[in-house]
Amino acid sequence: MSGGRAGEFELIERFRRLLPRPPREIVIGPGDDCAAVAVEPDRLLLLTCDALVEGRHFTRGTLDAEALGRRLAAVNLSDIAAMGGEPRHAVLSLVLPPDAAEAWAEGLVRGAAAELGDFGAWLVGGNLASTAGGIVVDLTLCGAVERKRVLRRSGARVGDVLLVTGQLGASAIGQRLLATGNRTLAERYPDAVSAHLRPRPRVREGRAIALAGGATAMIDVSDGLASDLLHLCHESGVGAEIEIAALPIASATREAARELGLSVEPLVLGGGEDYELLLTAPEAAADALGRRVRETTGTPLTRVGRITEAAAGASWLDAAGRRSPLTASGWDHFRAEGQRGS
Amino acid sequence: MSGGRAGEFELIERFRRLLPRPPREIVIGPGDDCAAVAVEPDRLLLLTCDALVEGRHFTRGTLDAEALGRRLAAVNLSDIAAMGGEPRHAVLSLVLPPDAAEAWAEGLVRGAAAELGDFGAWLVGGNLASTAGGIVVDLTLCGAVERKRVLRRSGARVGDVLLVTGQLGASAIGQRLLATGNRTLAERYPDAVSAHLRPRPRVREGRAIALAGGATAMIDVSDGLASDLLHLCHESGVGAEIEIAALPIASATREAARELGLSVEPLVLGGGEDYELLLTAPEAAADALGRRVRETTGTPLTRVGRITEAAAGASWLDAAGRRSPLTASGWDHFRAEGQRGS
Repeated sequence: MSGGRAGEFELIERFRRLLPRPPREIVIGPGDDCAAVAVEPDRLLLLTCDALVEGRHFTRGTLDAEALGRRLAAVNLSDIAAMGGEPRHAVLSLVLPPDAAEAWAEGLVRGAAAELGDFGAWLVGGNLASTAGGIVVDLTLCGAVERKRVLRRSGARVGDVLLVTGQLGASAIGQRLLATGNRTLAERYPDAVSAHLRPRPRVREGRAIALAGGATAMIDVSDGLASDLLHLCHESGVGAEIEIAALPIASATREAARELGLSVEPLVLGGGEDYELLLTAPEAAADALGRRVRETTGTPLTRVGRITEAAAGASWLDAAGRRSPLTASGWDHFRAEGQRGS
Repeated sequence: MSGGRAGEFELIERFRRLLPRPPREIVIGPGDDCAAVAVEPDRLLLLTCDALVEGRHFTRGTLDAEALGRRLAAVNLSDIAAMGGEPRHAVLSLVLPPDAAEAWAEGLVRGAAAELGDFGAWLVGGNLASTAGGIVVDLTLCGAVERKRVLRRSGARVGDVLLVTGQLGASAIGQRLLATGNRTLAERYPDAVSAHLRPRPRVREGRAIALAGGATAMIDVSDGLASDLLHLCHESGVGAEIEIAALPIASATREAARELGLSVEPLVLGGGEDYELLLTAPEAAADALGRRVRETTGTPLTRVGRITEAAAGASWLDAAGRRSPLTASGWDHFRAEGQRGS
């Protein structure tokens, strides 16, 4: 099962124990970005689903239907990307109250289909149900990956380098720019605003990483770097340390944060919906992998830390090299630490 | 897209036009019980999803979590059955309010996994999201079927016999027995009550029908015989007539209906959640097909009508041979006709 919202992780752990021992064809069950099933000898069928809930993930006022459809597709595409797979076919489940206009539903379908189409995937079917409550849209996406190339959360090894694709924090800052209601301000930071309104899943990068070889584990950064790194550590049975000063944050993102009176780093650690990929690779393979991915996709890989013994736990190092423990509720923790330190 | 709830059919027709022309590997897109994709040369990947919504499809008071999990799996298994396929792998999306206890979620997962397991399928992953509204549970099920054996809604031909598996009406009567609150009465009709509380998808029968050969089209009876037959007629470009006197209704179901002062037939036509399979076959093949399915599964196939020219529309014949048009809102219509006729 994907994600790591509050309480979800614990519940998934319980579900794993509830389910009967799966047959051997189920190569990856609950607990990774996607489930993976061996339906052909050399290839795995990847399966993932993610839902967006009105009032929790969106309101009809702030995100139009087409943008929401794109986001719904993007969060699922990101899970396929995190396994190194190619997205293929999706089904869409719409749960709509009577006051959701048909034009709204059409916009959602159009947006989801367009985002899937941008990455070579297709909406092939779905279901429509009515509700007296709010809108729920749920997409299930199938993909494929070569069995020998699949990247799990569980493959990280002590000494591996921690790498991240692209740049972090723009979406979180974009969200806060929009929340000010100050349009002139928001318009000065179009990259941050669009990172929030229209996250782009790293499908090509995930695929390039899988094809390049060398990576040992991968997860998408959907819940915040701290929480997703902790998932990777848990599944791999390792610890990790992150260097805050190494986080790739665009100068425009930093500038917007300054204008807002915010620090970007706590937002990156504790939330942010960056939809970048976090991966591990042995020191000896990391540079070649980074070059290869940059050549193929134009996207940089940045070293942000390393994998340590499980006993060392997970921690972050500030610019002065001071170490603090990393927790899934990293945001409050980091902020508290940051305030104390500053 | 599956199903035929009010307004859904029209919306699906619109969605079909919204989506770009699919690549050739998508053999069946929206509009059948499942989508079907050619991922291997001779086999199709089947994809279907169905959601159950609190307040609309269930209330926490009337159906326990495990029974709801079984039902959620069953409605999806029924869609795979209607294509002649084998169910394989499922992902489950849970949207839960804070007041849904963890034990409730566990019961749901356990029920869904058990029902899937009864038919050789596995829950491999899922997602958990929170909501301020009611519970929504959505399951996506993948299956497989040989390309040459897949049974679509669109294959019925003029002159074909209309056949139905098993017996009809028990679930609708079971629901009404429970609604009386009269426990002694309900306990006298355990088959009807269990048909309602725990519908059994006709996975083995669907598979036997596909393997036997001879059937030309198939759909599952989830929305009522009238509505589902009209879908089949629409997709096949044909008309149909149903003989009301031929509907297979168990004597216990009739007896319970009598006690309740109800007619079973309108309930069968206009609703009922029978989860039987409705199929068509050429006259010359129908008897052999029926024998074969009965031998393999123990379940009878009953002739309930025949396929006619599209121009003749869809109609039903009463015991005296009087003909009336069949409409998707068949229930009220039938009742009105029945009252006028009696």
